[in-house]
Amino acid sequence: MKKFINSPDDLVQDSAAGLVMAHADLLALNEAPLFVYRRTPKQGRVALVSGGGSGHEPLHTGYVGHGMLDAACPGQVFTAPTPDQIVAAAQRVEAGQGVLMVVKNYAGDCASFQVASDMLEMECTTLLVNDDVAVEHSTRTPGRRGVAGTLIVEKMVGAAAEAGANLYECKSLGTRVNANTASMGVALTSCTVPEAGAATFDIEACEMEVGVGIHGEPGRHRSRLMPADDIVALLLEPLLKDLSLAAGRSVLLHVNGFGGTPLIELHLLNRIATQRLRDAGLQVKRWLVGNHTTSLEMAGASLTLTALDDELLSLWDAPVTTPSLRW
Amino acid sequence: MKKFINSPDDLVQDSAAGLVMAHADLLALNEAPLFVYRRTPKQGRVALVSGGGSGHEPLHTGYVGHGMLDAACPGQVFTAPTPDQIVAAAQRVEAGQGVLMVVKNYAGDCASFQVASDMLEMECTTLLVNDDVAVEHSTRTPGRRGVAGTLIVEKMVGAAAEAGANLYECKSLGTRVNANTASMGVALTSCTVPEAGAATFDIEACEMEVGVGIHGEPGRHRSRLMPADDIVALLLEPLLKDLSLAAGRSVLLHVNGFGGTPLIELHLLNRIATQRLRDAGLQVKRWLVGNHTTSLEMAGASLTLTALDDELLSLWDAPVTTPSLRW
Repeated sequence: MKKFINSPDDLVQDSAAGLVMAHADLLALNEAPLFVYRRTPKQGRVALVSGGGSGHEPLHTGYVGHGMLDAACPGQVFTAPTPDQIVAAAQRVEAGQGVLMVVKNYAGDCASFQVASDMLEMECTTLLVNDDVAVEHSTRTPGRRGVAGTLIVEKMVGAAAEAGANLYECKSLGTRVNANTASMGVALTSCTVPEAGAATFDIEACEMEVGVGIHGEPGRHRSRLMPADDIVALLLEPLLKDLSLAAGRSVLLHVNGFGGTPLIELHLLNRIATQRLRDAGLQVKRWLVGNHTTSLEMAGASLTLTALDDELLSLWDAPVTTPSLRW
Repeated sequence: MKKFINSPDDLVQDSAAGLVMAHADLLALNEAPLFVYRRTPKQGRVALVSGGGSGHEPLHTGYVGHGMLDAACPGQVFTAPTPDQIVAAAQRVEAGQGVLMVVKNYAGDCASFQVASDMLEMECTTLLVNDDVAVEHSTRTPGRRGVAGTLIVEKMVGAAAEAGANLYECKSLGTRVNANTASMGVALTSCTVPEAGAATFDIEACEMEVGVGIHGEPGRHRSRLMPADDIVALLLEPLLKDLSLAAGRSVLLHVNGFGGTPLIELHLLNRIATQRLRDAGLQVKRWLVGNHTTSLEMAGASLTLTALDDELLSLWDAPVTTPSLRW
């Protein structure tokens, strides 16, 4: 296992501490139970809390800050956070208008956030993200998985919360963003969970996993490795089908790397995908290219589309100051 | 070769086009000869031009924008840009106060920028970056190599140029930043140059290359893989020796990934390095953690220290708006 690591037992805690050290102007760390939260708390606004298994960094801890999340709860690698983390985080950041919990649709995450929600004596509600069109049900969840579209939901709802939207409006907006967002990915290599010490799955040098999940779980099928042009076509087709976009529609394109894919390749994918979307009559209005929702060191990438209207565009453009997203 | 790629021949050009598509508000592309430049040109200020082999993204194209570079010239992968790229870029961005060319110390880069400089009929001068303390001479260059400290030089000098420093002052500042900056890295895996199609070097599952260069060139020695604590100690010792920092001195710490190392590991390295520097009596005042100066998909990381004074600190803190660095 070739990783910069001392022990699998310390990795999540020490890495979160390293993140907060590097961004002490924005973030604070609660060591036990573990969560990362905004150093400068909101007042009189809906608070956003998210979380999930570690190994997807910068999701979610890298999106805590002005205009996005108020707190993020990292579980162990690919393992849901515990309810006590979520409860403590919600109590810390609640600012008088209730708490919206953004949850990726995995069985473990749903259970932990549900228990936390039952324990919390405050106004709170859950927003489920399930943007992955690859499979209807997976090894980790009933229904579609939540993947790279999650940060788009967090960005837009975070902007609305910052501007004073109430809890009902934030949830309703998030539901709408999720419904207008679709993702699908492909893996070229596996990743290695530190506690396991061996690759999550085997894959031949000439193969790729189409529709892979962000924990290395199986997707639609195993295919021969293809040129980038063909991979982009393979990923875009189900996204366009899922969103049923009419010609002329505006979209946000997010090209996401899974952690081990360098920017030079992600920008190549972006050029191809942007051109294809334009050829399909769509207006690509905004872009996000980078390793955002990762699977440890997996080589691979996903494409995410969000259908935009004026409201969603202006929420995307609203100022944001977090470690990994800022403008 | 597991990469998102169509052909090695198109990769650099198409990837630069993808970057510019995603940041069309900031950047423009010159297709032939290839360079990336600021969409909104400076007026009456020193212009900064950099460049080098591709495969180190986001360096340099990801640092074009307000407060940093005016243009960047990407060569083929791990190959210096040609003089005609540099000449055309300098002519495009020159804004009345001359051009400073920021060059990493490699034989090919030095030669190309020298030829370009001789061809240019304008006030221009070269600033050499050689922050890598690993080896005195390498397979690619006489003298120390220029590595991850380059972006720190580009950020600080870019801020000074934006504020109106003249060409002499910019060069003199850059020389000072370079002298106060030291880097060293370690590779866990090799990378594969697309044109070559095979790993640049062989490395066993239990080994790491200490002092590796950003093209996979050899460093100080091959060692057994160590825990992260020991790797940080191994990297920091020569940096502290090189910079001879007195207790109480302020530093900037840059934890850089080589492209295939995920953030969860880089933040762990940051926690360890920050703590060690504090234990050594230094004040870590600023941090930059991420995959910034990469070697394609290589798993590995480097540590860079820059000794700060009030001037350098304020230049680091000055606003910057580029694809990969903005605050």
